[in-house]
Order: sequence, then C-alpha cells, then structure tokens
Amino acid sequence: MSTKVTIAELTGAIRNIPDFPKPGIQFKDITPVLGDARLFAGCVDLLAANFESGSVDAVVGIDARGFIFAAAAAYKLGAAFVPVRKKGKLPFGTFEQSYDLEYGSNTLALHVDALKPGSRVVLIDDLLATGGTAVAAVALLRRFQANVLEVDFFIELGFLKGRDQLTDVPVRALVVY
Amino acid sequence: MSTKVTIAELTGAIRNIPDFPKPGIQFKDITPVLGDARLFAGCVDLLAANFESGSVDAVVGIDARGFIFAAAAAYKLGAAFVPVRKKGKLPFGTFEQSYDLEYGSNTLALHVDALKPGSRVVLIDDLLATGGTAVAAVALLRRFQANVLEVDFFIELGFLKGRDQLTDVPVRALVVY
Repeated sequence: MSTKVTIAELTGAIRNIPDFPKPGIQFKDITPVLGDARLFAGCVDLLAANFESGSVDAVVGIDARGFIFAAAAAYKLGAAFVPVRKKGKLPFGTFEQSYDLEYGSNTLALHVDALKPGSRVVLIDDLLATGGTAVAAVALLRRFQANVLEVDFFIELGFLKGRDQLTDVPVRALVVY
Repeated sequence: MSTKVTIAELTGAIRNIPDFPKPGIQFKDITPVLGDARLFAGCVDLLAANFESGSVDAVVGIDARGFIFAAAAAYKLGAAFVPVRKKGKLPFGTFEQSYDLEYGSNTLALHVDALKPGSRVVLIDDLLATGGTAVAAVALLRRFQANVLEVDFFIELGFLKGRDQLTDVPVRALVVY
C-alpha cells in the first residue's frame, strides 16, 4: 500500500489538549490521525519513506505510542520489530539506560538479544520533546553496534531543542511545532 | 506483503520465562517472534487472515503489547487504529470500563470520539489470559454500537478459560497453551 497524505492534512488532524497531563502543557493528541485510516497509513508511509523493503533489519519503537508507528513501519518494510520499554517490563535480560526528567529520572531497557551486532535499524517514536528518551534509546542501540540509519518522529516540539541532543544520527520529523 | 509462517514456527519462537513478573508465573515472551522479520509479518498476516483490505473500519489494540500487532494489522488492512489504554493515559474525553484483577481492579479507557456508531472493528491483543481485559475492551466497543467482527489473540492460555468470558464475539487465537 502507498497512501499519499500531506503534512498539512496530518497537522490539521492533530488535536491540541490544553493542560494535559498537567497545567501549562499543550498536549498533542494524535488519536485523530490514527483514527483516520488514510491518514494513519499515509503517516506510516512518510515515516518509512527513506527506506525500501528489505533495507532495514529492525524498526525500533518506544513504549507505548511509539509502538504504533514503529510496528506498522516494520511490517511495511519487512523488518523485525524491537520494543524499547521502561525498566521492569521486559522479561529477559536487558541493557538499561537512565536519563533525567524535569523531576527525577527514567530508565529504558532493551533485551540483550534484541539485535545482531551491526544491524541496520530505524528508531521511530511519536514525539520528540527534550530528546531524553530518544538519546537513551540510541545509547541502548549503540550497545549492539547498531547502524542507526535514521531516527524518525511524527511530531517535533522544536522549541524544546531535543534535536540538538541527537548529534550522531540523522533525525527527521514530519510535523514541527 | 503476504508471508507464510506455520503455527509450529510461531510456537517454537515464543520464549518461556519462569517466575516473571512474579513467582509461579510462566511468562510467554513474544519478543523473539517480533524480532524475526518473517515471523512478525507472518503473525500479523495470520491475525488479519479473515479480513480483506477495506472490510474493516478500525483495528483496536490494547496498551501496550497489543498495539504492536493491532497497528501492523490496521496498516495491512487499510483500517484506522484505535488505542484502548489504561485510565488517565488518553487526553480527550473517555468512556471507562473497570474489571477485577486477582488483587484489586483495573480501568480501561477509550476516547468518546474513537469510533463512528456501527463501525466494523477487530480487536487484537497479544494474550488471552483470564479474559478480564478483553471483556472490558469489548464492553467499551459496545458503547459505540460497534460491530465487533472478531477478537484475535496471538496467544491463549486455555487453562485460564478466558474464552468462556467472551460469549458474544467470535474469538480466535493462533497459539493455545
């Protein structure tokens, strides 16, 4: 399937929710995009646009919304799907990587057998904010000497400058605020 | 894409993890299936096997592992993707449905505008255990007078008899223990 949608259509379907999950935050609700079959397929196609089927070994997705785009892109590209999850969720041995939050910290985990050394991987997440999550995920992928072809986001909050943290990988976002 | 895999191959790739997340539980780790491009695609194809592209309005997935199969199946079928999440995660107005756990309870939520009345939907989750989650999810779908065509699971723990709770929908599982 190849479905053409425009960035303007995607942007128009994103719903702004003021003060979620806490006062002052303008939450970008992507469910109206997911809930439109054409927009969802088109969004996946745009996220995977730089790759041909068979040219990627694994698409890596971050729990939980990242799973949605990454799993669909993995299927489209004929690639494996590899989940990055919060510490404690993956049942087998894991590599772990912590990163700072505004208050406190968070730890991401990846199974120690998730990738073969040198695998060609694409990391897809729904949102690039401060970049902490993505930087930690890329650090986990480096444990496998993975070839991180690209890190793709549906939405980038440009004013948070998360892209500046991702210095050693190509970064692409479909919709930038 | 159409990728043929056998149930024996899928079963062989599921990894049993004793005593996770707590003593006495034999956790079924599906990441080796996801991590094999051919098995992942084949598993998605089998989950969606009863439907043709365009015959399903939405594939509904349950947070978080359910998102993986459901999103890929939605993409394959040209359907929308609708996430069912734990209460508090979805930013817009929600319908909610609680269900009992062994100790305590859990509440699932679905956006009030997630589906048009009468939508043809398929619910996909990774695991059918006691059935509490799936029953609650189907109850949420009924709030939209949805036409629940099928509820599909990758794995069914048959000895927990969750299928007996899902009396009013067709239920299918690929691998049954």
